[in-house]
Formats: sequence, structure tokens, C-alpha cells
Amino acid sequence: MTADSVIELLENGRILTTPVLRAAAARLVPPMDTVAAYHFGWIDQTGRPADGDGGKAVRPALALLSAQAAGAPPETGVPGAVAVELVHNFSLLHDDLMDGDEQRRHRDTVWKVHGPAQAILVGDALMALANEILLEQGTVDAGRATRRLTTATRKLIDGQAQDISFEHRERVTVQECLEMEGNKTGALLACASSIGAVLGGASEADADALEDYGYHLGLSFQAIDDLLGIWGDPATTGKQTWSDLRQRKKSLPVVAALAAGGSASERLGELLAADAKNPENDAFSEEEFAMRAALIEEAGGREWTSQEARRQYATAIAALDTVDMPEDVHDKLVGLADFVVVREK
Amino acid sequence: MTADSVIELLENGRILTTPVLRAAAARLVPPMDTVAAYHFGWIDQTGRPADGDGGKAVRPALALLSAQAAGAPPETGVPGAVAVELVHNFSLLHDDLMDGDEQRRHRDTVWKVHGPAQAILVGDALMALANEILLEQGTVDAGRATRRLTTATRKLIDGQAQDISFEHRERVTVQECLEMEGNKTGALLACASSIGAVLGGASEADADALEDYGYHLGLSFQAIDDLLGIWGDPATTGKQTWSDLRQRKKSLPVVAALAAGGSASERLGELLAADAKNPENDAFSEEEFAMRAALIEEAGGREWTSQEARRQYATAIAALDTVDMPEDVHDKLVGLADFVVVREK
Repeated sequence: MTADSVIELLENGRILTTPVLRAAAARLVPPMDTVAAYHFGWIDQTGRPADGDGGKAVRPALALLSAQAAGAPPETGVPGAVAVELVHNFSLLHDDLMDGDEQRRHRDTVWKVHGPAQAILVGDALMALANEILLEQGTVDAGRATRRLTTATRKLIDGQAQDISFEHRERVTVQECLEMEGNKTGALLACASSIGAVLGGASEADADALEDYGYHLGLSFQAIDDLLGIWGDPATTGKQTWSDLRQRKKSLPVVAALAAGGSASERLGELLAADAKNPENDAFSEEEFAMRAALIEEAGGREWTSQEARRQYATAIAALDTVDMPEDVHDKLVGLADFVVVREK
Repeated sequence: MTADSVIELLENGRILTTPVLRAAAARLVPPMDTVAAYHFGWIDQTGRPADGDGGKAVRPALALLSAQAAGAPPETGVPGAVAVELVHNFSLLHDDLMDGDEQRRHRDTVWKVHGPAQAILVGDALMALANEILLEQGTVDAGRATRRLTTATRKLIDGQAQDISFEHRERVTVQECLEMEGNKTGALLACASSIGAVLGGASEADADALEDYGYHLGLSFQAIDDLLGIWGDPATTGKQTWSDLRQRKKSLPVVAALAAGGSASERLGELLAADAKNPENDAFSEEEFAMRAALIEEAGGREWTSQEARRQYATAIAALDTVDMPEDVHDKLVGLADFVVVREK
């Protein structure tokens, strides 16, 4: 698939999903409806219509493709696409507040504009709305889809809890980090990749295989995100240099480097242990972060993470082979995976 | 029913529900499992087992009784009782944070002890867990129950949003206030009163009638709570004198007094409008609050609210007549309503 056809795929997903998503958000009582519209980029801070960047909309595209993988029309996947987007945005609203992040998609975050209470309330409302939208379908398949969505939602919350708790720990194993990233990024992509199929009547085995595709795609994406979090170009990522090191994230390159052994690994461990006793690392110079990044690379953390991204990608693509689906749908799922994994920011 | 048999009813509900609730909370990843156990009163701040006050447990008792109203054993209602308790406690965790409340059940609130992020995360997790527990039953009736629970959860969130927004408005109508209280208090009691019956295979009509009972019981409870919020004895309520007036709550006695017309109503309206321009009402003297309370009473707000509590109670009890249920179950639902409505704190 060409890059253009992936863009078209994402755009078609948006066209089918956005009206239903807007109608869902409009159910909230004031001022939550306005706050939600601001969060999704449909209005600006003054309430005027905006043509906002609602994100890449990979999840809706996956949900519609997964309906087609089960032989159903993309429309069958729409309630699933909307529900997954609602859960994704619930987590953004709450995570931005918990992490104190002031910017999202180049705009002030909801807690920054409308206050913490609205960020909590609207997040809560979007999570509940997601289940409501699905269960309103009133079918047995909608019940199956809701059960998978609820499990994914719980894992998403587990992942955020683990991410926060890891920041306060000196050591995290590679296994723990992969589990956290699987919860935080893999679980909802897994759900997005299977929910349309479930609504289209797919077998549990096919739904599980599609979940595997999405789960490992999420882990591949996250491995690359972890690389960009340290070595990404600020001009393209829109973040500070050494962003994850500044936040003391126990991301994959860091934990892999610490687990590798050898002199660079040991030196890195000593530095990070000393850092943990000094909460003011904003005062660190560029050179001090660059030195830590160099040690991570020397210990093999960068190369291991890069290979891990490729391994997870291969596992994701292999999972598709067990599902009997139209060839063009298979190609689109591969094309979307390429788009998600090969990126500069 | 005697007071003793109501206490026994509540205790039996706790005995059936608490082990399942504890097992559900234990699924959360650390440190959320500990934070949840603290919130439910099972451990103290140092992690030692505690014999905490987990609340009156009216909702679980209603859920088990509603299973019996459908001719099923109380055990059939247990997943519903647990799910409703989880949603109730999700809302307590988030509301305490949004409202800045530092005490709940005579203990420091979760955000005060474990920080705002844990209050948000564990609240989120309990909401998701509620749906998970129900859907794991894997039956069509569990799907119906989850749909009702999700609708109730959304109303609960709507009610909290309305409550917060009303505090910033000068005027709220009696109708708006009743709608807010119906969402905030009625909806989840309605769900508790029907969810066991739904799990026991009750018809939609019977489930709706049981919801009506719970909804109006909630409104009756809330009307009395609003009276105690102004005229309650601090020694029994555990709150400050004139508690709701200090918080500028647009509670039923206030909005009814403002809507009544006449000289006391007008004088009250002028005072509250002036108050709204002065955010520092902590500096008000006891006499100033007492004067506002006297005006509310003189305008008829106290008497109207007291009558409203009786009207809502009568509507609740009448709703039970449309459901064909064992006589002893009917009597227990009436006994529980009496217990909920007649109280001193």
C-alpha cells in the first residue's frame, strides 16, 4: 500500500466515525458537552468551531477494517470505533491531569483550560458513554464487544498506574516494562483491531488473533516511541530533547541497558541511582543528559529496543495469517501497521 | 419491620457481598489494590487490617432483595450488588477530590492520604471493574444489567456536573434541582433496586417498576439530606452548622424558597445575589447564616422540602404495588425505605 492509500483509509474512517462520535459527546449535560468538544478539537477555547487535529485516528480505522476482516461492511464496526475512541480520550483527559501535561495536539489541555474537575468529569463520562454506545446495539455480539472493551479499559488503567509507580522505583525489569507498555498501549489497540470483527459476528478465535495483531502492533509502536523519547529530533517530535530522561521514565532503552550488564550498564545504574536522590534534574545540563543517552546506547539499550520493535511488528503481522479474511483487508491491515510503526514523530 | 430486622437485612447483605467485593478490588495492580482497600476501610493508613465503616450498605441490600422480588435467591443478585457498590465508590473517590472533601466516614479521604492521581486512577478502575464483574457472568441478563448500570453511571456523572455548575449560578429552578438530585442520588439507587431482579430474569416492566421505587426513594432521601444540610444538628450529622449554606449549595429548601415569592423569598434572593459577589463567606458569622436559614423557612422552603420527601416516599412505595412479588420481600423493601428515609444524620 502507498502512503496515500493509508491516508485515504484513515480519512474514510474519520468520515464514518466522527458524526457518531459528535452525536455521542452532545449527549453530555452542560458544560461537559462543551468541554468534550474542546478536547476533541471541534471548538476553540472561546467556543468557536475549529478544524482541530483530533489525532491520527488509527484506532477507528482499525475497528472498521476488523469488521471487514469478519466479512461485514465497515459500517458494522462504527459503534466499536466510536467506543474505542471514547475510551482512548477518557485516558488522555485523565492522564494529562495526572501527569501535569499542559499541551496535547499543540493546544492547552482540558485541565489547563477548564480546570481539573472538568477533566475528571468529562473523562468519566466518556468512559461510561463508550459502554452505553455499544450496549445500545442490544445484540449478543455487542455484549461480547463490551466485555472485551471493559477488559481493555481496565488494562489501560493498570498500565497508567504501573507507569506512575515505576517512576518512583529505582529498578524495573524489562519484563515489567513490557507488561506496562502492553497494558498502556497494546490493550486498546488490540481491542480496536478486533471490536469490529466481534460486532460482525467473528468467532472468538478470530477475534483473539486480531487482538494479537493489535497488541503486538501497540508494543512495536511503543518501542519506537521510547526510542524517539530519548533520541527523537525536537523539531519533529515537538518535545524537549531527551524528553523521557528528563521525566526519568523507565522506558525500554533504559531498562534494557540496565539489564545488559557490562561497564556502561553499571555506570548508568550508578548515575540513575544518584539522580533518584536529587529530584531537581531540571537543573541538569544538555551534556549530562547526552552522557546518559550515550551510556544507554553503549550498553546496547538503543539497539535492543530497535530490534524489539521489529520483533513485535513481525509477531503482529504473523497473527493475521491465522484469520481467513479478504486479501485487500489483509493488505490494508499490513499497510496500517507499516504506517504506525514507520514514523518520525 | 423492626429496626433490628433492618439491621439484620443490611448485615446479611454485607456478608454475601463483601467477600466478592474484596476479591474484585484485589485484582487491581499495586498500589491501586492497597488504595482501594484503604478506601473501603479494610486497612488503615499504615496498611494494617482495619474493621472500617464501609457505609450503611443499603445498595447491596436492595440489590439482593430485588433478586428475591423476581423469585430468585439473593445470591443471584450478588454480582449486581458488587457492581453497584463499585460504581458508588468510584463516584465517592472522584467527588471527594473534585469537592476538596478531606474526610469521609470519619477518615481522611484517598486523595488526602494517597494523592490526587491515586484517587483518579482507583476511581477509574472501580468503574471499569463494575462492568467487568457483571459481563463475566456471560448471560443475556448480565448484558441487560450492564446496560442499566451504564445508564445509571452516566446519570451519576451528569448529576455531579450539574451540582458543580449550579454552585456557580445565581438561580436554579426547583425542576433543575430535582433533576440534578435524581441523577446524583436517584439513578444509582434505582439501579440497585432493579439489578438483582434483572439478573434473576425479571421482565423489563418489573425492572422498570423496581427502578421507580429506588429512584423516588433516592429523591426522598435527598430531600431529607437537604433539610439536614441546613438544620441538622452538627453533633449528629458530623458536619458544620449550616453546612450547605456555607457551601452555597442550591439545595431544595433554597430553590423552593426562592421560587415561592413573597417578601421573605425576595429578601433571601437579594442576600444570596449579594453573597455571590463575595466569595469569602467563610468570614460570615453564625448569625448571618441563621438569618438566611430563617428566611428560607419563612418563605416556606423547609416545609415544602419536608412535604416533597413524603411525596417521593409515597411514590416509591406505590411503585412496588405493580410488581408481583413474595409478601415478605415487599415488606422488606418497605422496611428498608423507612430506614433510609427516617434518620437523624
